[in-house]
Amino acid sequence: MLFIQLDGRGALYQQLHRALREAILERHLAPDQRLPSTRTLAAELKVSRNTVLQAVEHLMAEGYVAGRVGSGTYVASVLPRALPAEPLHAEDQPPPRLSDAAKRMTVQATPGRATWAPGSDSLPFDFRYGEPAYADLPIDTWSLLLGRRARRLSAKRLSYQAPGGSPELREALAAYLGRARGVVCVPDQVIVTNGSQQAIDLTARLLVNPGDPVVLEEPHYTGFSYCLHAVGAQIHSVPVDDYGLRTPDLEAIPSARLVCVTPSHQYPQGSTMSLQRRLALLDWAVRRDAYILEDDYDGEFRFEGKPIESLQSLDRNGRVIYVGTASKMLFPALRIGWVVAPTPLVAYYRSAKALGDTGTPPIAQQALADFISEGHLERHVRRARIHAGKRRSALLAALHKELPGRTRALGANAGLHLLLQLPEVAAEDLSRLREACRQRGVGVYPATQYYERPPAYAEFLLGYASLDQEAIGQGVALLREAIDSL
Amino acid sequence: MLFIQLDGRGALYQQLHRALREAILERHLAPDQRLPSTRTLAAELKVSRNTVLQAVEHLMAEGYVAGRVGSGTYVASVLPRALPAEPLHAEDQPPPRLSDAAKRMTVQATPGRATWAPGSDSLPFDFRYGEPAYADLPIDTWSLLLGRRARRLSAKRLSYQAPGGSPELREALAAYLGRARGVVCVPDQVIVTNGSQQAIDLTARLLVNPGDPVVLEEPHYTGFSYCLHAVGAQIHSVPVDDYGLRTPDLEAIPSARLVCVTPSHQYPQGSTMSLQRRLALLDWAVRRDAYILEDDYDGEFRFEGKPIESLQSLDRNGRVIYVGTASKMLFPALRIGWVVAPTPLVAYYRSAKALGDTGTPPIAQQALADFISEGHLERHVRRARIHAGKRRSALLAALHKELPGRTRALGANAGLHLLLQLPEVAAEDLSRLREACRQRGVGVYPATQYYERPPAYAEFLLGYASLDQEAIGQGVALLREAIDSL
Repeated sequence: MLFIQLDGRGALYQQLHRALREAILERHLAPDQRLPSTRTLAAELKVSRNTVLQAVEHLMAEGYVAGRVGSGTYVASVLPRALPAEPLHAEDQPPPRLSDAAKRMTVQATPGRATWAPGSDSLPFDFRYGEPAYADLPIDTWSLLLGRRARRLSAKRLSYQAPGGSPELREALAAYLGRARGVVCVPDQVIVTNGSQQAIDLTARLLVNPGDPVVLEEPHYTGFSYCLHAVGAQIHSVPVDDYGLRTPDLEAIPSARLVCVTPSHQYPQGSTMSLQRRLALLDWAVRRDAYILEDDYDGEFRFEGKPIESLQSLDRNGRVIYVGTASKMLFPALRIGWVVAPTPLVAYYRSAKALGDTGTPPIAQQALADFISEGHLERHVRRARIHAGKRRSALLAALHKELPGRTRALGANAGLHLLLQLPEVAAEDLSRLREACRQRGVGVYPATQYYERPPAYAEFLLGYASLDQEAIGQGVALLREAIDSL
Repeated sequence: MLFIQLDGRGALYQQLHRALREAILERHLAPDQRLPSTRTLAAELKVSRNTVLQAVEHLMAEGYVAGRVGSGTYVASVLPRALPAEPLHAEDQPPPRLSDAAKRMTVQATPGRATWAPGSDSLPFDFRYGEPAYADLPIDTWSLLLGRRARRLSAKRLSYQAPGGSPELREALAAYLGRARGVVCVPDQVIVTNGSQQAIDLTARLLVNPGDPVVLEEPHYTGFSYCLHAVGAQIHSVPVDDYGLRTPDLEAIPSARLVCVTPSHQYPQGSTMSLQRRLALLDWAVRRDAYILEDDYDGEFRFEGKPIESLQSLDRNGRVIYVGTASKMLFPALRIGWVVAPTPLVAYYRSAKALGDTGTPPIAQQALADFISEGHLERHVRRARIHAGKRRSALLAALHKELPGRTRALGANAGLHLLLQLPEVAAEDLSRLREACRQRGVGVYPATQYYERPPAYAEFLLGYASLDQEAIGQGVALLREAIDSL
């Protein structure tokens, strides 16, 4: 009579609540119809009256029934037709109405990560770039420091934090960046971000209006272009050569607001910007009232000569926004990066960070502060640089042995990868070569995505941080085999 | 003769490098001048020739000198005037050139956090709202799960992750939200964010163009308006009453793209949206091709009747973007929230998240997945709800005893705070009353900031999650004293 069927899932009152709701939605109980008394329901369904009361109260709270429990309860007048049984598929829905910004978001993969076809993550000779040498990481030390901070959790530390970052970390970073990268700043100028990617995104949002001209290096790091496209920037490419960005070419670009550069180790081509160019760039920024975003993503890793100090260290006019990351020195999953902003911009970065996500998780920040101030970071970087230096030498030696005169290796003086040019392989044959490598267990990653106009010949970014010297030698021998097989 | 003075800091070659650079910058060594030979320098400074070589190589890498070491080294032609000695002050710099978005970013404090004058964080009777009961948190369990995940760190887990969130957490959340909040979704629709604030920001960026009309509740959560102002939305306020958003008022608003609501527990006024209004809102969204952002920030905490299921559970047309957070169920410093997006929007949320910060830190995500799937979350929420319920009763009883008929408490059926109206205190006297409270050790927080047009009388949001029952009674007695002292 009442079409009530308990389904046996969960507590009795929940079953009854579901069954009554179903009866209402299916119109077995019509709008405005009076419900049977709780006494009648209890007797008919052989449950306690209290169970019925609980179920009916829930329906009342949800609005399916109205009235006073016990003295007349009625089905509501307005009711949904039926509840959704399962999620809607995309194809059953009209295309979404999106903002212009959303339409400009062209990101297909995670910025900063080399991509490959799915399921091939376990190649024995994988020259994946953009990641540190995981085996070298002082994971025990890190876990210890993180655990120590985690055990000291108190209400104060569990609560919302200042959006600009933990004071301990901002202080440790200001000191470290001064020592290691020549950065001139006070802790107040440091804003902690979720990796350098957020630093770039905040910068694009704070400085660029739709249609504003901005300058990118050609080739350039795609993490820049994703964010700049999203805010609608009009992107001008300026080529790089062995001395970095060709600064004379800047003069032709009208009223650019921002130029994004990688002076320590041009991404992906690998050059170091010369002092002359650095000074010219700073001078241009002053004359044009433009900002310079300096992404110092792997400035710590320099193998010939000493590390070059940051561009920021030469800036006497507050034009440089210095951006860094713990992803290469420690590991990407940490998701900690930083901006060192010119003082007039600091409050804006904090506002953007506050509305963007209220702040980076504090416990990892505090552990990183300890890691830096107790000297672990510099010890680790020193060791990692030595290891990476040996792998780099092994790679250069293997290329020289296996492919003498047939390749050019760019940007090997710094960083954890180099750019390998293969003049004898046409760009059209890139995917064939890549597949020939894969069949031999070798992972290689083209640099094509970083160019507006890719070169006519094949280019790979070879990351060597994670491979041991023997594997590097074997990998290059197999790469030669693959090339010769074409 | 050479003006070279070693300063005794760091290795010898570093001292020499600094001293030579200083001499160059101060023009004691002029542009294009030839450096003395390394042999001469070594002899004059009484250091090894190797030390000199190292220092000069470094200057060469930096571009201060050019030529070939040993066979003639010259000071570069173009040089910076001097290095910045200390950071520039804001007042020494011109005002920054900002984007329109930056000018619209009006965030002064951390969204979601009650603010007070600095230095008064230790009031004994602090009715701070927006935070959970820290003493109730199962911190030991949490540390255990986090530690377990931290010890399992492998290269794969330390690397970049999928921007949408860890698969484990998306699965655990989809199941939990289905059980606890009636949310209908598959794990693929879940995007993990850095707290609900980032979910709101991504939504604003994806859906709203400058000038687009959007609807906010009046009063409303400021976390919405910060982000919507930033993207240039034209904000229309629609008042709430005891049944939530007054949906009939929506008809007058032209082509709104988005309406942001808090149907479970209106923020800050506290009502629960009625079923009729929910259906009317969904219907309006379909007719207008608009999206509804449902912020279910504390839907788990309901004291009278059972929890009301989410608005999303009634949505049969893919109009509801469901947003939640771990900040109230666990703690804000975790910085984990989530979006459950209609299928056609999922790829866009992932793109926006990827360019925004590449992804939320994975280790905490995995620990939270364990916390949910091992049943700790629901156990904790159940217990926390009982505790909060007792505190709520204590607060209502104390208000009834100390201020009978002189106050109205709104929104006490749900959540971890209530809205206290004091009709006898004029809005102009709010700060005097607040100060009178502070002198008595009582922290109270006005709701003014959440209104476009604040009421003429005083209103406070009283958070009760963190105070024990005794303190609540004493706090309210002191509040009465403060009111009577005016």
